[in-house]
Amino acid sequence: MTIRTDAAYADELDADDPLAHFRERFVVTDPDLIYLDGNSLGRLPAATATRADELVRREWGDRLIRGWNEGWFVAPEQVGAKIARLIGARPDEVIVADSTSVNLFKLVVAALRAQDRRMRILTDDLNFPSDIYVLQGAIDLLGQGHELEIVPSPDGIYGPAADLRARLDERTALVTLSHTAFKSGYVYDMAELTAAAHASGALALWDLSHSVGAVPVDLNGANADLAIGCTYKYLNGGPGAPAFLYIRRDLQERLQNPITGWMGQKDLFQLALNYQPAAGLRRFLTGTPSIVSLLLVEPGVDLLLEAGMTRVRAKSMRQSEYLIGLWEALLAPLGFTLNSPRDAHRRGSHISLGHVEGLRIDLALINDLNVLPDFRTPDNIRLGIAPLYTSFRDIHTVVMRLRRIVEERLYEKYSGAAPVVT
Amino acid sequence: MTIRTDAAYADELDADDPLAHFRERFVVTDPDLIYLDGNSLGRLPAATATRADELVRREWGDRLIRGWNEGWFVAPEQVGAKIARLIGARPDEVIVADSTSVNLFKLVVAALRAQDRRMRILTDDLNFPSDIYVLQGAIDLLGQGHELEIVPSPDGIYGPAADLRARLDERTALVTLSHTAFKSGYVYDMAELTAAAHASGALALWDLSHSVGAVPVDLNGANADLAIGCTYKYLNGGPGAPAFLYIRRDLQERLQNPITGWMGQKDLFQLALNYQPAAGLRRFLTGTPSIVSLLLVEPGVDLLLEAGMTRVRAKSMRQSEYLIGLWEALLAPLGFTLNSPRDAHRRGSHISLGHVEGLRIDLALINDLNVLPDFRTPDNIRLGIAPLYTSFRDIHTVVMRLRRIVEERLYEKYSGAAPVVT
Repeated sequence: MTIRTDAAYADELDADDPLAHFRERFVVTDPDLIYLDGNSLGRLPAATATRADELVRREWGDRLIRGWNEGWFVAPEQVGAKIARLIGARPDEVIVADSTSVNLFKLVVAALRAQDRRMRILTDDLNFPSDIYVLQGAIDLLGQGHELEIVPSPDGIYGPAADLRARLDERTALVTLSHTAFKSGYVYDMAELTAAAHASGALALWDLSHSVGAVPVDLNGANADLAIGCTYKYLNGGPGAPAFLYIRRDLQERLQNPITGWMGQKDLFQLALNYQPAAGLRRFLTGTPSIVSLLLVEPGVDLLLEAGMTRVRAKSMRQSEYLIGLWEALLAPLGFTLNSPRDAHRRGSHISLGHVEGLRIDLALINDLNVLPDFRTPDNIRLGIAPLYTSFRDIHTVVMRLRRIVEERLYEKYSGAAPVVT
Repeated sequence: MTIRTDAAYADELDADDPLAHFRERFVVTDPDLIYLDGNSLGRLPAATATRADELVRREWGDRLIRGWNEGWFVAPEQVGAKIARLIGARPDEVIVADSTSVNLFKLVVAALRAQDRRMRILTDDLNFPSDIYVLQGAIDLLGQGHELEIVPSPDGIYGPAADLRARLDERTALVTLSHTAFKSGYVYDMAELTAAAHASGALALWDLSHSVGAVPVDLNGANADLAIGCTYKYLNGGPGAPAFLYIRRDLQERLQNPITGWMGQKDLFQLALNYQPAAGLRRFLTGTPSIVSLLLVEPGVDLLLEAGMTRVRAKSMRQSEYLIGLWEALLAPLGFTLNSPRDAHRRGSHISLGHVEGLRIDLALINDLNVLPDFRTPDNIRLGIAPLYTSFRDIHTVVMRLRRIVEERLYEKYSGAAPVVT
């Protein structure tokens, strides 16, 4: 992609963008703000704000307990079936409830218990620390020979795919990876690594938190066993919205949910004193899901289904290519490094730029120039592209503002203390 | 309490009620509806509807990711500290996140692992089936000698307190009970049973779901070890709102959360690859909590703090006495039985009435006479009194409607099929 560095070119790209009008479907209160943190918390869809009012005032306030029979009970499957369409799964293979971490715990413990002579989990050091904490807790809980191996990335950018394949052996129970790495944006070849896991007798579990809604995922095509993902990043589901989990259909009744609960019970209103798992994936529910947060996920998913993942991915790739082009021309000379893969097919929808003054530049962006990126230690300024509402002009503007911060040394007033929470 | 059975008497009681004006603080869309299911899903406080709009449009829509630093991060402790005041706990002993069942799982597994030579959990058959399912799952997961003993109630109404005390021995790790039984409304003497558990070396865990906001609880006074509870019943937090958990201060750092996660990590933004628990109770958090649902809990808790638990309990006792008086005079002759304790001090804030045609009567109440009670197998019509919005006239009206259903045989058109979901 050959680019020009002038703002008019950004406007031309926006004029040619078939998804540009989706920006109007979001609540934008400050048109000057450049929001590049949709990979931490997606923007509020306008339909979600309307839905919140309906959900609280009409469904809860007016319908009261009747809401359960009028839609709430099936909400985990209903929203799950829509997310399934974004990630290449069948409608009965995805449910929404609990947090990403709780869902990971359920699946990891279930996977390890299902293969009792295999006791090792393989992951990499690009995985979310939050996932690694869950794995460490599960290993510790199951005890007796269970172990976690964290394979290092060769460069902090690319995933150690070859090393992971080499480490697969008869002791490996599970390979679990973030499909798109949260720091560099590297994207694994899901089909290839899942096949390698299967060839060694292991299961594969994919964290789709940084992929869903931004990067094409084909769980069924890859024959993936298990997956989890959050809904508050590119799905625009709202802060801490409940997460999803996926279990391939033929595994659903072979795996055992360790956190057995009423919502996964076979016949809820018999109130029997013996747990009997419900049919299918519902057995992986536990307690009553947070209905308001859960149903607010749906309008954001509907927007992505309307836009179509093919168009979303095409725009995301054009935008990250454009950003890399601008980096090369305008930012690299000022000491910014590219901490994301150059190969667009191995790259998700965010770009990490490094700089020795990364943290202080980040603070100047936020506090002085009305940009919200996010920051990941030690020096990553992470620029998230959410194709439904990020414009080419947004990308051009942030590059200009980054230049200005360095050229005018605007970062010097900051001490480099705690970064903004993202 | 000597009562009269005429409607004017109910109006006199309402006129004398110091909490009567709290009803105006709730959204009431259908003034004719008699809502006696606040023990399943509390009504919508008007302040919560306003808060929902602010939370979604301003905090999420306008502040975006900045919301985390502007209040969301401390939401679990902030709402927890307020609930602590309702249940006799210190502010740093309660947090809100996850579901009641997930919280129970965390605490039960932590308690069992902390006492490795004691492997037995004691509970009763009045406990929530949902809790028993979690206990069964935890026992099964920990394996190797762990067991669950379910002590039966002598009559399905009173808890088997003496039998539980007799079963406490050197193998007992944990006694866990619902403080107020969901079916009969029986209330345990928390201090007495906790002391007995401690005398035998066991820990005591109380499910406060049917107590909090309706029945006085003094966790510190009872020296209780652990507790959980839901926020969508008498706290009016909204459908499936996140639950709370309590750990007595001196136990917090001795217990280990089995579902280790990022929100419970010592220094979140170091992104270290080794889990290290945060100080205090925060270590029992796991993933990102559902912020919208969580913060909608707060206005309902504020209402209870404003009313004061002493006044709430006084009104609840007067109302349940009044209902029992009306039952005795007007319903017992029609075949209704009282399935709740007569002793007001051993009774929570709901009354269960049995009838051989219980389910069909329940269906007629809901479908023909605009009453929402709830129903629990086999024959319990459960009438929940929420003192903040239930009037004496509501109670009088439901008794009159129950009479009419039986006298006019309005239930006969129902087949006794599936009850309404509650």
